[in-house]
Amino acid sequence: MRDDTIMLAHGSGGRRMHDLVRATIGHILIQPKYAQFSDSAVLGLSSGQVAFTTDTYVVKPLEFPGGDIGTLAVSGTVNDLAVVGAEPRYLSCGLVIEEGFSIERLRRILTSMRKTADEAGVAIVTGDTKVVRHGEADGLYINTAGVGVVAEHNALTSDSLVPGDVVIVSGTVGDHGAAVMAAREGVDTSLVSDCAPLNGMIQSVLRATDGVKFMRDATRGGVATVCNEVVEGASFGMRLNAESIPISDAVRGFCETLGLDPLYVANEGKTVLIVAHDSVQVVLAALHSHPFGRNAAVIGALVDDLPGMVILETPLGGDRILGMLSGEQLPRIC
Amino acid sequence: MRDDTIMLAHGSGGRRMHDLVRATIGHILIQPKYAQFSDSAVLGLSSGQVAFTTDTYVVKPLEFPGGDIGTLAVSGTVNDLAVVGAEPRYLSCGLVIEEGFSIERLRRILTSMRKTADEAGVAIVTGDTKVVRHGEADGLYINTAGVGVVAEHNALTSDSLVPGDVVIVSGTVGDHGAAVMAAREGVDTSLVSDCAPLNGMIQSVLRATDGVKFMRDATRGGVATVCNEVVEGASFGMRLNAESIPISDAVRGFCETLGLDPLYVANEGKTVLIVAHDSVQVVLAALHSHPFGRNAAVIGALVDDLPGMVILETPLGGDRILGMLSGEQLPRIC
Repeated sequence: MRDDTIMLAHGSGGRRMHDLVRATIGHILIQPKYAQFSDSAVLGLSSGQVAFTTDTYVVKPLEFPGGDIGTLAVSGTVNDLAVVGAEPRYLSCGLVIEEGFSIERLRRILTSMRKTADEAGVAIVTGDTKVVRHGEADGLYINTAGVGVVAEHNALTSDSLVPGDVVIVSGTVGDHGAAVMAAREGVDTSLVSDCAPLNGMIQSVLRATDGVKFMRDATRGGVATVCNEVVEGASFGMRLNAESIPISDAVRGFCETLGLDPLYVANEGKTVLIVAHDSVQVVLAALHSHPFGRNAAVIGALVDDLPGMVILETPLGGDRILGMLSGEQLPRIC
Repeated sequence: MRDDTIMLAHGSGGRRMHDLVRATIGHILIQPKYAQFSDSAVLGLSSGQVAFTTDTYVVKPLEFPGGDIGTLAVSGTVNDLAVVGAEPRYLSCGLVIEEGFSIERLRRILTSMRKTADEAGVAIVTGDTKVVRHGEADGLYINTAGVGVVAEHNALTSDSLVPGDVVIVSGTVGDHGAAVMAAREGVDTSLVSDCAPLNGMIQSVLRATDGVKFMRDATRGGVATVCNEVVEGASFGMRLNAESIPISDAVRGFCETLGLDPLYVANEGKTVLIVAHDSVQVVLAALHSHPFGRNAAVIGALVDDLPGMVILETPLGGDRILGMLSGEQLPRIC
């Protein structure tokens, strides 16, 4: 085992781990003022409600057009905080590294994490590193948990949704899943992941209006899954208009070739918003003024017939039920 | 693949994942009042300082005498919060499950997590589940992050340490690492892990006195590593008295057989405390009155000679340097 790869001793709690954690991992990820290296980071938080979330990222391949597992691990967790109406503040980082992993590649991925955290205005403040034997992981898995503050207004929940509310998506759908799948299969395409922290865009929408009732970022399972989660067990249903859903030509072509429905393909920089009818124009204007929301569009509405169901109106005038994905589509997409 | 094992579809974002997460994982782990299943849990927290920590648990085997990876995943993160002087409140749970893992075993481990969380008085409030292919993990890895509140006093840091301060350990050392190693090797011993949430014991000590200056739970790398971290870069050193360090006969015998030093073997229910000289008796009394601290003992003191070094005084009168572990000792012990 060479000096430029991760060894089991890097996870043993001894000198090598101490040095790796401080000189490499902590040095890249953690701003100096948070570099306490104690058991927990101790942080100031304004009082009120706190949002707390976690995701483990197992994406394959680790690097793909538009980002890498580091970009994803920060963006995904930041977005989970932002969509409940919280301002993301602090992230943790738990690494599981397979023995033999390149330290240079680790540095590159950690640098992406830090860059994305800086872009999102969040600080990575605490972490943990475990090393497992060759064959007990697939390179690198990253968990991030995130803490945010819910200031000035209440957290967004689906409780206030009513028929007539409008469904908006913040941009083209399926970009992340398609780009990762193409990269995994080694297909040379123009597909690029949309992986990005959305908190800036979302905050600008929430500052513009009180009319946003609910948001959810459309990750695994895609827009179709999020829409099904919104109506599940509810007294209302949802109608979506297929032609109004923004999909890039590249994603459409890729999905047609593989027989995939882009509505079920993962995004990592798109959110579904459910908005009071009279706030639609304000929300669209705020989204369109942000680079990550420039392709935002109204895609449907909540309806009082067919409670609990999502109906897709297709170009030829037919309706079809857009159910929840029942099988396996794209494992390790995030 | 049978119905009673985890399939890739359980991680796809579709119906099977939805059902697994709600009916099994969420049902076992999460108290009904926190079962929002939104992107982030939104929580009340008293204002002030917040402590935040994370650990990923990769222990092998997943079940061992005295606990399992679930007991460990809650105890370890609770303890990381407690030793900085915080009261643990909320935990997240990120699961990476290998395809083919037994759902019955998953239920058993999640039930351990919930039981330990209830015992510690913390709530698991948010989570994430990923499934990877056979050979891309080793059964189950669990990340927990934790949030606690630092009330009434400041968080404990090593800033106020001075020569003359007294080093206490809260009980026998090496129990967790020895028990896991014996279980891994299939050796039938009386060894039992000390894996336990220490927040109750620690809070009772902190309520009894302001004399505790610093604590750290002695996990990977054991008591010797914690002591080295305390003195690293400091203007003082530490002297420990080997005969005063509590070690069970079973751990001593096991370590002698394998040529291990129990001071480097992991604990999951023991903390090192550094205490002002005039508070030692109060701290010991508080520890001894708690089941997890009944074997607590003074093991040494900070000294002004030999800055940055830990010296172990041995029974025959000789001193030896207790350095930081330099190689690999016990991978996947936690």
